[in-house]
Amino acid sequence: MKAVGICGSDVHYLKTLRCAHFVVEEPMVIGHECAGIVEEIGSEVTHLVPGDRVALEPGISCWRCSYCKQGSYNLCPEMKFFATPPVHGSLANQVVHPADLCFKLPEDITLEEGAMCEPLSVGVHACRRANVGPETNVLIMGAGPIGLVALLAARAFGAPRVVIVDVDEFRLSVAKDLGASETVKVSTNEEDVAGEVELIKKAMGESVDITLDCAGFNKTMTTALNATRPGGKVCLVGMGHNEMTVPLTPAAAREVDVVGVFRYKNTWPLCIEFLRSGKIDVKPLITHRFGFSQKEVEDAFETSARGGSAIKVMFNL
Amino acid sequence: MKAVGICGSDVHYLKTLRCAHFVVEEPMVIGHECAGIVEEIGSEVTHLVPGDRVALEPGISCWRCSYCKQGSYNLCPEMKFFATPPVHGSLANQVVHPADLCFKLPEDITLEEGAMCEPLSVGVHACRRANVGPETNVLIMGAGPIGLVALLAARAFGAPRVVIVDVDEFRLSVAKDLGASETVKVSTNEEDVAGEVELIKKAMGESVDITLDCAGFNKTMTTALNATRPGGKVCLVGMGHNEMTVPLTPAAAREVDVVGVFRYKNTWPLCIEFLRSGKIDVKPLITHRFGFSQKEVEDAFETSARGGSAIKVMFNL
Amino acid sequence: MKAVGICGSDVHYLKTLRCAHFVVEEPMVIGHECAGIVEEIGSEVTHLVPGDRVALEPGISCWRCSYCKQGSYNLCPEMKFFATPPVHGSLANQVVHPADLCFKLPEDITLEEGAMCEPLSVGVHACRRANVGPETNVLIMGAGPIGLVALLAARAFGAPRVVIVDVDEFRLSVAKDLGASETVKVSTNEEDVAGEVELIKKAMGESVDITLDCAGFNKTMTTALNATRPGGKVCLVGMGHNEMTVPLTPAAAREVDVVGVFRYKNTWPLCIEFLRSGKIDVKPLITHRFGFSQKEVEDAFETSARGGSAIKVMFNL
Amino acid sequence: MKAVGICGSDVHYLKTLRCAHFVVEEPMVIGHECAGIVEEIGSEVTHLVPGDRVALEPGISCWRCSYCKQGSYNLCPEMKFFATPPVHGSLANQVVHPADLCFKLPEDITLEEGAMCEPLSVGVHACRRANVGPETNVLIMGAGPIGLVALLAARAFGAPRVVIVDVDEFRLSVAKDLGASETVKVSTNEEDVAGEVELIKKAMGESVDITLDCAGFNKTMTTALNATRPGGKVCLVGMGHNEMTVPLTPAAAREVDVVGVFRYKNTWPLCIEFLRSGKIDVKPLITHRFGFSQKEVEDAFETSARGGSAIKVMFNL
Repeated sequence: MKAVGICGSDVHYLKTLRCAHFVVEEPMVIGHECAGIVEEIGSEVTHLVPGDRVALEPGISCWRCSYCKQGSYNLCPEMKFFATPPVHGSLANQVVHPADLCFKLPEDITLEEGAMCEPLSVGVHACRRANVGPETNVLIMGAGPIGLVALLAARAFGAPRVVIVDVDEFRLSVAKDLGASETVKVSTNEEDVAGEVELIKKAMGESVDITLDCAGFNKTMTTALNATRPGGKVCLVGMGHNEMTVPLTPAAAREVDVVGVFRYKNTWPLCIEFLRSGKIDVKPLITHRFGFSQKEVEDAFETSARGGSAIKVMFNL
Repeated sequence: MKAVGICGSDVHYLKTLRCAHFVVEEPMVIGHECAGIVEEIGSEVTHLVPGDRVALEPGISCWRCSYCKQGSYNLCPEMKFFATPPVHGSLANQVVHPADLCFKLPEDITLEEGAMCEPLSVGVHACRRANVGPETNVLIMGAGPIGLVALLAARAFGAPRVVIVDVDEFRLSVAKDLGASETVKVSTNEEDVAGEVELIKKAMGESVDITLDCAGFNKTMTTALNATRPGGKVCLVGMGHNEMTVPLTPAAAREVDVVGVFRYKNTWPLCIEFLRSGKIDVKPLITHRFGFSQKEVEDAFETSARGGSAIKVMFNL
Repeated sequence: MKAVGICGSDVHYLKTLRCAHFVVEEPMVIGHECAGIVEEIGSEVTHLVPGDRVALEPGISCWRCSYCKQGSYNLCPEMKFFATPPVHGSLANQVVHPADLCFKLPEDITLEEGAMCEPLSVGVHACRRANVGPETNVLIMGAGPIGLVALLAARAFGAPRVVIVDVDEFRLSVAKDLGASETVKVSTNEEDVAGEVELIKKAMGESVDITLDCAGFNKTMTTALNATRPGGKVCLVGMGHNEMTVPLTPAAAREVDVVGVFRYKNTWPLCIEFLRSGKIDVKPLITHRFGFSQKEVEDAFETSARGGSAIKVMFNL
Repeated sequence: MKAVGICGSDVHYLKTLRCAHFVVEEPMVIGHECAGIVEEIGSEVTHLVPGDRVALEPGISCWRCSYCKQGSYNLCPEMKFFATPPVHGSLANQVVHPADLCFKLPEDITLEEGAMCEPLSVGVHACRRANVGPETNVLIMGAGPIGLVALLAARAFGAPRVVIVDVDEFRLSVAKDLGASETVKVSTNEEDVAGEVELIKKAMGESVDITLDCAGFNKTMTTALNATRPGGKVCLVGMGHNEMTVPLTPAAAREVDVVGVFRYKNTWPLCIEFLRSGKIDVKPLITHRFGFSQKEVEDAFETSARGGSAIKVMFNL
């Protein structure tokens, strides 16, 4: 392991010993956004040699269930995934991992960038599920780490216009630098939805074909459902609220569909291609770097938890 | 016009002068589930002759907007639709209607059955949008008129198992007669969701691949989202609640998608084929018939509004 | 192993030591249409116990390549498949096979019927690839064993009309018994195509939406391409000619697409469901049964090779 | 009319009075790649005013048939299309045309570029039908006018690598300038197919996921079928040969599908967006410009017919 990013779920596990419905019951190594250098390979491995620099896809699925066989291995009920209890994560010096989940990095892509394939995969999977392409204008709710990778992915999938919305000026300015067509600053006041939908539509200029809700709160989802054109799609990526109170019926009556995402599948080759071709540059997202001393590790998690100007905090081992 | 069914929306308009966001501001003829006999045809019409018995698709779209051109004419913003204000409905002796929206009935299909193509189209469109087929077990929430046409459509699309859920024993017994694999009686108590989901899963035996929520209440939608397997679909057809409080986030995190429906498109030929082949028999749904005297009209609407054993109330003119 | 059917490819291998581009270089057991009784299970197997009656899916794919991971495991370049050199087949007393490729048969389905899941899978996969459903009339070229399973599958997928074409009266009469809407007898003379297309269109009455060419000769494919409506699909299943001389350009200019099939994927559960529900009855296809003495084995292959009234020849061990 | 391009079909009609199965029986104006300035609008037109610069989509469909209603208006059997007999074309000073087929050009797009939306639409429609996107490497057979617009479209749809093949060095050099990843020069000798497929695969480096055959000869189609990976698609765009002799069966047995194209649908807004955003620059394709004197008209058609360095010949009226 040479580069491991900190994800919000890592911070959750560290602080609360749980994340969503997953609970840590025994000591567990965290970390799952990672890249490293191959030390040893199995006897049947032909696409790697020791010394290769690789990005790791963190989930090992069973390949025997109907989900795996039908191409939805991300939904495999037997999935073993880095840092999802009770499976250890990859914030470690060495890990043993299936070779077909180790993707060789091109020469000009750094290990740090390789580790970024994991969060980027979330954006890529959301864009695929929502069918983002050169004919769909995209609205993104939330300019946190996930909103920003969604923005990068939406541009790489060819979305002609991407408008991004947040409550935080700084994040919006980062989004603008990363290629957002327009940014819209909103409040946290739920009363403001109608007016904000108007602002968003005006910022888009054309129809909002797809919305990626990377926040997942009642208010962001209400905005998403109301702003999206009839026949459009809302992809719910963020997990702010669990139970949601939203105008689902009027949205359904305009055939605005809501699609969900769980992790990703078959995304590493595409992410690496996006990095290689320059269609996506993840380097601006890596705002902080730490080593692996006790002190640095503590600082790293503190920095990540604090948010603010920290987008992605990376261990360089 | 020879046969016109009464829809819930007709009753709404009659009693409250509105339905959803549509408001009646001037006197308006209601009715849109209809079939009749051709009296006169335009000079370019070649597929009909006077005397033909036809079922009428009630909406006239613009064919100039992007929705029409891309095959989603049901979402046309310029749609003129029977009995959607300010357009008059078809509960009349005569209507003028575009010939391409008049579908000739085979000899052995009655005009009443022809009028049933309209409600049946709602079920057919829901099945298409949710991708019902021989590989998808279907759960239907609600055994009212829409739930029952959804059941008929799901069977005709080849669903191997269809489980239907309602609070009303009588409706469930009708559903059973119409081909439901199993029925599940539930309460209106929101506390019971978890237990009822278990009952439903047990009744299905296998995975719930698709749920058609033909009620559209917080409770039915919560049940739908929780009962459907990862990667499955919930189609929201009913419009019980407008704003909804439901566990949308955990469902999205299992990639259970929510798809909506607005009316239908290109359904008449398929409905007529289902009737012709006997894959669907709508006759059991027509529980009451009325003529067109003042007294009978009042009785008809009363009967329809009362529900109970009245499924579809039909005017035979 | 308790029931093993003979496939055309088995006969090919037996007589010529090759089939398509696969060449037999060392002694090889043939057979791949099979069902049997579980003798022993691995320690992690939970869905089977010794004594269970199972149908076997014959191909073991690698689950590491991009085809496997994306849900197209039938295209896996590392596939190990019963009786595809150098892998032995299943015409044997015992085989060792992955448990996830052994599908338990319902009580009322015989082992013979279980073995028929293999040829039936070819029809099912063709129907899936061509998108056969309740809105597509289907034309089938060829009423041999594959044409007949395609017919059964097309009916089970809900095709309203299925017209089947062959040169042989007997096969057509079998097809009629199995549920063909109409049959059309044709010649082997390539000059007759235009007239035969007219006969076929007349027999169909409505548009030919999908054609399954289960013969795969210049003439059948020419008929298929010319008979199919604009925007329709031709699925090339049979492999009569290798290089083909056909009017591909005019078909492409009517957006008639040609889709291919290679074996099948994820078909066993659906086949078993079709058998269980009675939507498909394969018993009429099993015309001859043999035991496993030297004499009977020879007779069995002779019978299968001769064709004629032999549709499926089955070993009952 | 202010700008009209010359298409190969115009030259055909001029020289032979026919094109494919369309025959000119009475004097007919040709031309269908056009843009102009609005002189007058109908009373219901709201999106245009006189003076607007517009590109014209040339086909008027019926909007009553099942093709139109299902979103495949390009397959409408009642289509009235500029310069398809007996309908006059648009190489005229003025034409009357439905407003919904007149697409307003952004300020910085010239009328010439607007006229190029028509040939570009062919490339766009082919890319849509073949599902070109950021995950599909594309091979293009033929670097004539259609091959070149297909190249521009494939890049705009995000294809990571586009390899283009031709017999002509000059055309290949133009293709390279327009953004081809690699070019491969081939012969007209049919014996060379196997070797050329190897050269092409080497030039691609990775899998050939989609091939757009913009020539349509036995040899190009054979190369296309053999070069494309299992599960890939070949889109037949060019119409070199009518009857084709190609290895269709082995391609089908690798599930390489053949999809066709007929004109296009809903392409103008996307083409204009590609021009506006700079994702596509069609100016290099316009190699020759002519006025509208008798002499110039003759020269224009001569130049277009001669080919060579002439890619697109444009009338500027």
